[in-house]
Amino acid sequence: MQITAKSIYSDLELIRQKGPLVHSITNYVVMNSTANALLALGASPIMAHAMEEMNELVAISNALVINIGTLDAPWIKSMHEAAKAAKAKHIPVVLDPVGSGASKLRTETCREFLKQGYPTIVRGNGSEIQSLVSDLAQTKGVDSTLHSDAATEAGKLLSKRYNCTVSISGEVDVNIMGDQIVHIKNGHPIMTKVTGMGCTSTTFVAAFNAVNKNALMASAHAMAVMGIAGEITFKKSAGPGTFQTNFLDTVFNLSLKDIEAHYKN
Amino acid sequence: MQITAKSIYSDLELIRQKGPLVHSITNYVVMNSTANALLALGASPIMAHAMEEMNELVAISNALVINIGTLDAPWIKSMHEAAKAAKAKHIPVVLDPVGSGASKLRTETCREFLKQGYPTIVRGNGSEIQSLVSDLAQTKGVDSTLHSDAATEAGKLLSKRYNCTVSISGEVDVNIMGDQIVHIKNGHPIMTKVTGMGCTSTTFVAAFNAVNKNALMASAHAMAVMGIAGEITFKKSAGPGTFQTNFLDTVFNLSLKDIEAHYKN
Amino acid sequence: MQITAKSIYSDLELIRQKGPLVHSITNYVVMNSTANALLALGASPIMAHAMEEMNELVAISNALVINIGTLDAPWIKSMHEAAKAAKAKHIPVVLDPVGSGASKLRTETCREFLKQGYPTIVRGNGSEIQSLVSDLAQTKGVDSTLHSDAATEAGKLLSKRYNCTVSISGEVDVNIMGDQIVHIKNGHPIMTKVTGMGCTSTTFVAAFNAVNKNALMASAHAMAVMGIAGEITFKKSAGPGTFQTNFLDTVFNLSLKDIEAHYKN
Repeated sequence: MQITAKSIYSDLELIRQKGPLVHSITNYVVMNSTANALLALGASPIMAHAMEEMNELVAISNALVINIGTLDAPWIKSMHEAAKAAKAKHIPVVLDPVGSGASKLRTETCREFLKQGYPTIVRGNGSEIQSLVSDLAQTKGVDSTLHSDAATEAGKLLSKRYNCTVSISGEVDVNIMGDQIVHIKNGHPIMTKVTGMGCTSTTFVAAFNAVNKNALMASAHAMAVMGIAGEITFKKSAGPGTFQTNFLDTVFNLSLKDIEAHYKN
Repeated sequence: MQITAKSIYSDLELIRQKGPLVHSITNYVVMNSTANALLALGASPIMAHAMEEMNELVAISNALVINIGTLDAPWIKSMHEAAKAAKAKHIPVVLDPVGSGASKLRTETCREFLKQGYPTIVRGNGSEIQSLVSDLAQTKGVDSTLHSDAATEAGKLLSKRYNCTVSISGEVDVNIMGDQIVHIKNGHPIMTKVTGMGCTSTTFVAAFNAVNKNALMASAHAMAVMGIAGEITFKKSAGPGTFQTNFLDTVFNLSLKDIEAHYKN
Repeated sequence: MQITAKSIYSDLELIRQKGPLVHSITNYVVMNSTANALLALGASPIMAHAMEEMNELVAISNALVINIGTLDAPWIKSMHEAAKAAKAKHIPVVLDPVGSGASKLRTETCREFLKQGYPTIVRGNGSEIQSLVSDLAQTKGVDSTLHSDAATEAGKLLSKRYNCTVSISGEVDVNIMGDQIVHIKNGHPIMTKVTGMGCTSTTFVAAFNAVNKNALMASAHAMAVMGIAGEITFKKSAGPGTFQTNFLDTVFNLSLKDIEAHYKN
C-alpha cells in the first residue's frame, strides 16, 4: 500500500467536501477538544449516549467512535447498542481502548467489544493494544510503556483474530491489517503533553474511514495528518497551551503543500 | 422595538455590574467553554444536575439554562425539577433544543418542556425550532438545514403557542415574540467551526434576560454581542482554535465603541 | 516553616522527574483543563469514576483528588470507594469542596468525607471552608464571599478537628496545619475570570503532595506555583481566553529564575 502526500490530501479534501457526521460515545475529558478537532478537520461531530436515541443517531452518522476513557456500566450498555446498530448498517466503528490494561473493567469491556466483532479499527497506544491480546501487559494510566516490537506483534495478532485494522500510536505510528503494515513517522513529543491527542487521532481515523472504506489507508492518512499538524503546530507554539489552540488552526488550514513539505515516507 | 448600540451596551454593563448567577444544566461538550464565556461576559456560572440540590441552587440563581445536548433519563428528571423551581420563583428559563428533530427522545423531551410552559426563551437553529412544531423537519446532527423562512414561520407559531420568545440563530438571527421580530445581522461563518458557539449564545441570552426582563430585547442584545464579538475575533484569529480562545478576550474587553463600530441595525 | 523559591522549584523538579499519577474524580466542567494543567506541570492525569475500577486505579496512583463540583449520588459512592482505597494505601487525598454551603447535598457530602477522615488536604475558598465547620456561612455559587479572618479561623478549626491541612485560596492564600500558617501572596484577579482555576490549584496541591509528604509545604508550594504562573501569564495575555491558554505554557516552562523573580515571601 502506497501512502503519499497526494493520497493523504485527497481524503482530507473528501472530508472537507462531504462533512461526514462522526458520532462519538467518548470520555468527558476530551469531548470538547475532539468535537473541535473534528470541526477543524471538516467533519461534523455528534456526541450522545442515551440508549433511547442510539439507533436513530447511528442511522444518520457516517462513523462511530467508541472511547472508554471514562466508562461506566450505563455507558457501556449504550456503546453496545450503538455498535450493534453501526455494524448492522455497515458504518465504520473505531474503538479507542483508553487505559485498557489498567483495570479489569476496561480490559474486559474492550475484549467483549472485540468478541462481538464491532470494531473496524482499534486505535490505541502500545500497552493498550497489548492488553487486548494478553494479560501480561501493564498500563500506567494512559501512557504507553511497552516496547514497540511487542506492541506490533500484539497488533498483528489482534488484527488477524478479529479481522480489524489496528493503529498503534507512538514515536512511529504502526498501522496494521493482517500482514500489511504502514508506518507513519510524523509527530512531535509535545503531543504527549496535551490531553486527548490520542483521542483526537481516533476521531480523525473515524472521519477518514467515513470517506475511505480501506481502513488501513484511512488509519495511515489520519495518523499522518495528526503527525504533520503536530510538527507544524509545534513550531508556532510556546508550550502545550498554545499548542492545543494552534493545532486546530493548523488542521483547519492544512494544505497539500504543507503535507508535501512534512510527510516522511 | 429599537435595538441600538447603546441599548446593547447598557445591558452588558448591567451584567458586568450585577454578575448574575446563571445555572446551567447543559451538555458535557460545552460545559467548560460556556462557563468561561459567562465569566468573560461578567456573569457567574454554576453547573449542577443532582435532583437533591436543584431547588436550592435555582433559588440562588438569576437565570436557568436547559440544554439537551447530551441528555439522558436522569438528567431530564433534573431539568424538570429545576425548571419547575425556576418557574415558581419567576426566574427566566432558556431552552436550547440541541439536536431536536434528530431523535424522538430529543424532540419529545423539548415538546414536554414547552407543554409544561417552562421556557421564557427558546434558542436554537432553524431545523431545531421547526422540529418543535412539526414532524416534517429533519436535523442533520446539530447543524441547521432548513430554509430560513420556514424556520421563522415555525418560530412565530412556537412563540404564540407557548407564549415564549424564540431566538433562531443563522446567517441572520431572528428573534421573535408573537408578531414582533428583531433581526440581528452580525456574526461570522467561522463560528460554525467552533463547537458550542450556539450553546454559548444560549447562555448569553440567559444572562441578558437575568438583567432585562424584556425577553425579546434580551435575546436580541445577546445575539448582537455574540455576532459582534465573532466579527472582531475573526479578524485577529488564524483559525477556529485561536478564534475560540480570542473570543473570550473579545467578550471580556467589549466596549461601547466596539459595538457602535460593528452593530448592523 | 520556610517556603523559598528554591523549595518551590525543588518540588516542581521532583514532579517533572517522577511524573506522579494523579487520579481525579472531579467535575465535568474542569476535566479537560485540569488534565492539561497536570500534564503541563509534569504530572500524569487519570480521570475515572466507575465503582468497579476504583480500587485498581487508586492502587497505581500517587494522589487522589475528590472534587464535588458536579456531584450526584452514583459519583459520591465512587468518591467514597476511591478515598477508602487511597487511605488504606496511604496515598494522599485532596478534597475540593466546590460550592459547599450552596446546597445541603454538597455540605453534607463533604462533612461525611471529613468524618471518615479521608482528606489529607482540603483546598477551597473562604466560604466553602467555613461551610464545613458552621451552618452560618452562605456560598454564592462558587465564589468566595466571606471575610478572610473568619475563613482562617474556620480553617484552623477544620485542620485541628480532622487532622488535615487546609488551603484557603483568595487574594492571599492561607495554608493551615493546626497552628502553623503559611501565607502565599502571589496571584492575579484575572484568575477569577477563568473557570476551574481553583480546581486546577487543587490538582496542583495533589501533585505536590505526591512528591512531598509534608502536606502544608506541598500546599504552599502548589499555591505559589499557581500564583506565580498567574502573574507571569497575565502580562502576556489579552483577556481570560488567552490567559487560560498561556497559563499552561507558563507552567510548562516555569524556571527557578521565574520563581525567584516573582515569589513574594
